Amino acid sequence: MSTTTPGARTRLSPAQRREQLLDLGVRLLADRSLDELSIDLLAEEAGISRGLLYHYFGNKVAFHEAVVRHAADDLIAQTAPPPGGEPLDRLLVSVAAYVDYVTANFEGYVSLVKGAAGGNETLRGIYEEVREVLSERIFTEQDLSGDAHGDLITDTPRNRLVVRGWSAMCEELVISWCTEPGDITRDDLLAIITQALPALIEGIPDTSATG
Amino acid sequence: MSTTTPGARTRLSPAQRREQLLDLGVRLLADRSLDELSIDLLAEEAGISRGLLYHYFGNKVAFHEAVVRHAADDLIAQTAPPPGGEPLDRLLVSVAAYVDYVTANFEGYVSLVKGAAGGNETLRGIYEEVREVLSERIFTEQDLSGDAHGDLITDTPRNRLVVRGWSAMCEELVISWCTEPGDITRDDLLAIITQALPALIEGIPDTSATG
Repeated sequence: MSTTTPGARTRLSPAQRREQLLDLGVRLLADRSLDELSIDLLAEEAGISRGLLYHYFGNKVAFHEAVVRHAADDLIAQTAPPPGGEPLDRLLVSVAAYVDYVTANFEGYVSLVKGAAGGNETLRGIYEEVREVLSERIFTEQDLSGDAHGDLITDTPRNRLVVRGWSAMCEELVISWCTEPGDITRDDLLAIITQALPALIEGIPDTSATG
Repeated sequence: MSTTTPGARTRLSPAQRREQLLDLGVRLLADRSLDELSIDLLAEEAGISRGLLYHYFGNKVAFHEAVVRHAADDLIAQTAPPPGGEPLDRLLVSVAAYVDYVTANFEGYVSLVKGAAGGNETLRGIYEEVREVLSERIFTEQDLSGDAHGDLITDTPRNRLVVRGWSAMCEELVISWCTEPGDITRDDLLAIITQALPALIEGIPDTSATG
């Protein structure tokens, strides 16, 4: 059942080869959990020896960490909001990329969330980092707030807490929807997630506002 | 360091004794995780033998399940909305009880969430049951919707998804706030959580509404 990547045996630099192996690792996470992603499986799929993989990654924990970091970098890159336009339109593009990423990499994504919540410190660290990057975008001028279009959200402690809650809501909604979409379409889901943020910010009076 | 419960040695029926042990188990979860709650510890705190505890609970897994079920029943009972009044006022009372419950039982609550998210099937089942009960309230006439005051929320697939997202947001907000309250007061937090629900329902146009 080996599905060796075309070109896996062509001459690559060690860095390129490592990158290629990480890409393969992330792809294998699309439909299996992190626990199911072994060095044996990667070796078989890549058509190379276990020994070489240990050479690249050291041990199973370091291998998992490298694959998850790679996946996290992919997620962050793919969900970058477009450079111009109205903040809410840009948020919608970013949210759509997030939903599509989770849909395409469902098992791996869920196993990251589970691992992070379940107390794996490495996974928790990477997970929190991703959350931090995604949340920061909401408050960063170059991204979704500021510029000629005006702030999407003022940076206050209250709003940071609300954005944190909104992030948890997004994650729950996407995972629930992937598991059991019912009559909700992808567009419905995108509308709910995107509109939820201004609805929360505008619908809850901010008594702590200082900014 | 034994803090034997007063009256633990008085004559009780087996059912009363079991209940009392479960109460003690839940209290011990206030400042320790489920992993740290051993039969040895409960035996020491209750001043009874390990053998007797095995008699009551069978094994460690069954013991943990019984304690968590007991804690879940407490949470459900304590967060019951008051019988009359405006839906939003009743929701506020219920949310306040939830926040106070999590604050008072923080370590145990977090370990339940972790255990459920981390793939412990028993904990996951109890956790989902609690969520289900709390969410159902939002849609049940006798509780927070319906009656002379009008529905808080119409029961549509879209609104069920939104309530699910709102629940995840509540959990995240309460856990974040307990961990690092910053300048946010308990009243701020209660206002955010309570007002978030109508803000979401009213602020997101429902294109799927059928009810």
